[in-house]
Parts: sequence; structure tokens; C-alpha cells
Amino acid sequence: MEFTIRAATPEDCKDISRMIMELAIYEKMPDQVKISHKELEQDGFSENPFFHCLIAEVPEQHKNKEGHTKVGYALYFYTYSTWKGRTVYLEDLYVMPEFRGKGIGKALISKVAQVCKEQQRVRLQLAALDWNTPSLDFYLAKGAQDLTASEGWHLIRFDGEALDKLAQEAPKN
Amino acid sequence: MEFTIRAATPEDCKDISRMIMELAIYEKMPDQVKISHKELEQDGFSENPFFHCLIAEVPEQHKNKEGHTKVGYALYFYTYSTWKGRTVYLEDLYVMPEFRGKGIGKALISKVAQVCKEQQRVRLQLAALDWNTPSLDFYLAKGAQDLTASEGWHLIRFDGEALDKLAQEAPKN
Repeated sequence: MEFTIRAATPEDCKDISRMIMELAIYEKMPDQVKISHKELEQDGFSENPFFHCLIAEVPEQHKNKEGHTKVGYALYFYTYSTWKGRTVYLEDLYVMPEFRGKGIGKALISKVAQVCKEQQRVRLQLAALDWNTPSLDFYLAKGAQDLTASEGWHLIRFDGEALDKLAQEAPKN
Repeated sequence: MEFTIRAATPEDCKDISRMIMELAIYEKMPDQVKISHKELEQDGFSENPFFHCLIAEVPEQHKNKEGHTKVGYALYFYTYSTWKGRTVYLEDLYVMPEFRGKGIGKALISKVAQVCKEQQRVRLQLAALDWNTPSLDFYLAKGAQDLTASEGWHLIRFDGEALDKLAQEAPKN
């Protein structure tokens, strides 16, 4: 199937927001989604954007029964390693179920890897759920390392009350 | 012991670089450190810095036998969650062994949490090694969640040849 990968524009944010929710449902955590297309427009398309996004689009004749032609996205931002320097983090990679198996996910992540090379960023990282074997297999088949399995890295989070409490305890000076 | 926490300046980069290596040795991966104080100066102190850093400093009379007064650091950068919006990632938190147990690590991470609140960032994340129980216990005691244990998130990495190959396979359009 024909498809194109291009940089997202503010006009894509409603579709990105729709697909963020589809991905969260797939990941069994839809109640965690708190932002809408308005925040995405503001945060991703200002002078110093907080993220970058690629969109996968199919021609009109391949639109699905709901009329969608924007069928996948890759959302990433720039990060930093104190060991390696400038790096990239892939926050989300998603292709709608009915458009999978056509090379769209591969094309999206390859384009993000191309951005890494163009911008001299030496590493691309992401997080995947341990029960999500289709995704894990997809990444590992392309040469990725599972650092949690091989080195023992665990992802740790402060939010809500724990973050508030921590901030309140900051020294004055 | 008296100490202060302040924003790092370019003049701190040699000490930050020294402590990055000390932390990498503690984490048993010193051979992974490829950047020096020069990259840190360039990447952290330009107009659009790739990271931010706090330094913990003790008064002259508490310097250690090597003469160091800069005894800890917290290096962080801004990230993005498609579920929650603007977030912060704590790449490194380190206090020199002989200065531990004095509240310096707690003060450093509390200051980063304060930055989160000031900048309306709803989440602070980091990665810790599963065998590093002093660090894990430190974070969990302060209310952090271990997302790898509770939700099954694994950290996945592309670098070196795998990243090169992925980039080469990107579609032209």
C-alpha cells in the first residue's frame, strides 16, 4: 500500500490526539490520557517546540471506513546522555491496527533514525511494555537492545502528591 | 554539614565531568563514557541548552582530601508525555561517597522537583539499576513508583550499527 511519511503540522493535532488515545487503549491505560489536541498544538508547534512528530498518511482511496487517512505517527524529542551526548527519545510509535503489516511502522521509526543521524544524535531510546511482545519483537528484530533485560534499568516516576511533597522540601538557598 | 545547591555554570563542567565518571564507575560501566567537559560546556550552556544542571557545594573547610568542594550534581532536561504533557527527566543524581548521608542527594532532587512545579511540569522520571538498592530505596522512600515493576515498562535502545542501518532504510519521500 502506498503511504507517505511527513512532518506533522498543527492541523494534524486532532488526528494525533485520536491516535494517542487509541495507543493508550491498546496499552490498557486510557484513563491516563489528560491532554487534548489543543495542548499538542501549543506544545509541539511553538518557536521552541517540546516535541516533534511524523505522520503516516495514505491516499484518499485507501481511507478506512471512518474516513481516516492519517494512520500512524511517531512522536519524539531531544534528550541528553551524560555518557554519549545528544540523543533522541521516541515517546510514541503507532500505526492503526488495520494498516499494520504494510511497512508503515518500520518507515516511521526509520525516519526518526534518519533524524538522529542528520542531527548527530548517537542514540534512540524508547520504552515498551513487557507483555507487548509484537512491539518488543519489532524493535529487537531491528537490532535494538532491551536495557531492562540486559543491564537492569528500571523506570522510576515521581508525580502527583509525591512530586508536590518533594518540591515542598527543597532547601531555600 | 553546611552545603549549597545552585545552578551549574560553564566553570563547573570539569567537576561535573569528573563526577559523571565517578557515577559511571559506581554503575560498573565506565567504558561507556565518551564525552568530556568540553561537550558539556557546549551542550549545556548555549542559548538553547540540551540539559540543565544543579551543583551541590560545600564550604572550603569541608573540602575532601583531593581538595574538592563540588561534591554532587543533578542533571536534568525537559521531556514530553503524550498522556500528561510537559515533564522532566533526571538523567543523573550523584553525591560523592564521603558526602553521603548528609541530605545532599535529597536536597538536589527536591530542587529538581521544585523546578518541575515552577515550570508546571507534572512528572519527574529517571532510570535506576535493579541491583542499586540504595538508590531504588532512596527514590521509593520518597514516594516514587517503580514503573518497570508495577506496569512492565522496559527501556529499549538503538545505537551504533543498529541505528545506522535503521536510518539507511528510511523511505525517500
